[in-house]
Amino acid sequence: MKRNMIIGIDLGGTNLKLALMDRSFRIKARQVFSTAGFSEKEDLVTGIAVSVNRIIDDNGLRKAHIMGVGLGLPGPVNSKSGLVHFFPNIPGWKNVRLKAVLQRKIRLPVFIDNDANLMALAEHTIGAARGMQNALCITLGTGVGGGLVCEGSIYRGSTYAAGEIGHVPVNEKGPKCNCGGIACLEAYIGNKRIVKAAKAAFRKDISLEELSARAQKGDVKAIRVWQMVGRYLGIALSGAVNLLNLDVIVIGGGVANAGSSLFDEVRAVVRKRAMSVQARHVKIAKARLGNDAGLLGAAILVQSHIGRRREKNQAGFFR
Amino acid sequence: MKRNMIIGIDLGGTNLKLALMDRSFRIKARQVFSTAGFSEKEDLVTGIAVSVNRIIDDNGLRKAHIMGVGLGLPGPVNSKSGLVHFFPNIPGWKNVRLKAVLQRKIRLPVFIDNDANLMALAEHTIGAARGMQNALCITLGTGVGGGLVCEGSIYRGSTYAAGEIGHVPVNEKGPKCNCGGIACLEAYIGNKRIVKAAKAAFRKDISLEELSARAQKGDVKAIRVWQMVGRYLGIALSGAVNLLNLDVIVIGGGVANAGSSLFDEVRAVVRKRAMSVQARHVKIAKARLGNDAGLLGAAILVQSHIGRRREKNQAGFFR
Repeated sequence: MKRNMIIGIDLGGTNLKLALMDRSFRIKARQVFSTAGFSEKEDLVTGIAVSVNRIIDDNGLRKAHIMGVGLGLPGPVNSKSGLVHFFPNIPGWKNVRLKAVLQRKIRLPVFIDNDANLMALAEHTIGAARGMQNALCITLGTGVGGGLVCEGSIYRGSTYAAGEIGHVPVNEKGPKCNCGGIACLEAYIGNKRIVKAAKAAFRKDISLEELSARAQKGDVKAIRVWQMVGRYLGIALSGAVNLLNLDVIVIGGGVANAGSSLFDEVRAVVRKRAMSVQARHVKIAKARLGNDAGLLGAAILVQSHIGRRREKNQAGFFR
Repeated sequence: MKRNMIIGIDLGGTNLKLALMDRSFRIKARQVFSTAGFSEKEDLVTGIAVSVNRIIDDNGLRKAHIMGVGLGLPGPVNSKSGLVHFFPNIPGWKNVRLKAVLQRKIRLPVFIDNDANLMALAEHTIGAARGMQNALCITLGTGVGGGLVCEGSIYRGSTYAAGEIGHVPVNEKGPKCNCGGIACLEAYIGNKRIVKAAKAAFRKDISLEELSARAQKGDVKAIRVWQMVGRYLGIALSGAVNLLNLDVIVIGGGVANAGSSLFDEVRAVVRKRAMSVQARHVKIAKARLGNDAGLLGAAILVQSHIGRRREKNQAGFFR
């Protein structure tokens, strides 16, 4: 029997998304579970195991068809040892050997990583940063996440916490950030801040989707909000570009749908403020993989660990 | 005859420094030439070749004793192809194949790199960042230079221009920088800015050496100037630490002699503003190799290219 399928999982603050993919990362089936009921760590681990079994059963497969399970997590993770350090937005997780625990429970090889790293891995392998040596992939959401590719590989840093472009200061003084820092990029352009700026501009509540739609139709007030976002993003990216001399910066997350009023401003600020050699070289591109980047990255992580080994040794795991 | 000696060269804006070293990077002889007379590019190239020949002759050696020549340069350099892109402070150099030109002229293997990268290479190989996987090495001088070590190797970036920590913005608005940017770190703490701040504090001209000496003796006004420097440096480093999750930041250059009033402030700002996982892990250390870092790095560059090859094949180069 051939192990030809991979399960990718994206664990967020509210949802657990799963996808069943083939070895070319085509999504064959997907499922979403709410994590609202899982207040205890053990419940969440059991929930992951149950949902893995269910997506296999529901698609008429058996474990023997599955190469492995990749899992993207919302916090710093030692992807080598499989240890979860903690989750900023899910209490109760501290130094959990999640890879080992899950492998025992579901009897399949498990690989885990930070969700921003998996987004970067996906965009680098099959998305907007494909073929690039050095890339920064950013997700604009409630927080501002980032994953780095250096010399063709995900760069995770000394304690698996690299890539935090959202926590680069853009001012000496400024708003307090959730991370404890001051005037971090995220404190200016996290989703809540954008919604607040939109409310101030329109004197009523307005969703990010509507703000994007209005900007695309040429509404000057909406465009100005996105330009504000682009300006702060451009300042932080000017520093990253000068420091890292990147090939490409990939911007994803719902906010990336704002279109040219955001991207034009980011590009203009980087062109103006970054050094000419670095600024001329770097491309600033929209993410290609959308909301599936995390799932795809999780599957790519499995493939990158098992794919080659499997070709050498068809014995596989856990048979 | 054994090729047991290496020549390291550090080309600055005003001086050409040479050192003759053994394979353990012990400096056996040194020479300094002014570059003031070399207004033409060809004159400077000839000057380098003449000075290499002289340091060999003056020490009773022959070319057959020399493994190679390493050259640190004040600007972006493609260290692989040996191409000088340009020098910000020396006009007339644009896309010069310096490695090839020099090799033909002096008949020895030549390796070139940016001076900040060589400082980082030296500190990483035999200095304050020894044994570390991820490091940022900073030189505080007229400009603020930087070299990055990622996963144990010098990280040069996509067009050999990475490491420019001096051109990370620390404010949205602020002083114009020499690089064309706005509110870059260098625009706040380049040597001239520190001298200016010292003059404002003491109402008279005061050298950086004296400013350091006074701070070390407890002079409050001098300490405040260094704290200002440390504050801006700490802000830029908080961003670098969050983005790169470094093991160590090494600070060198004359200004690093200011002592604890500078270093304590940098550490305090990073501890306060960077994310806890990254801030707790990173060490902030004074450079160990002082003014010789560039020369030592140039020799290490030669050793890293030739050392192993030579062990395999005693035939060598240019014999």
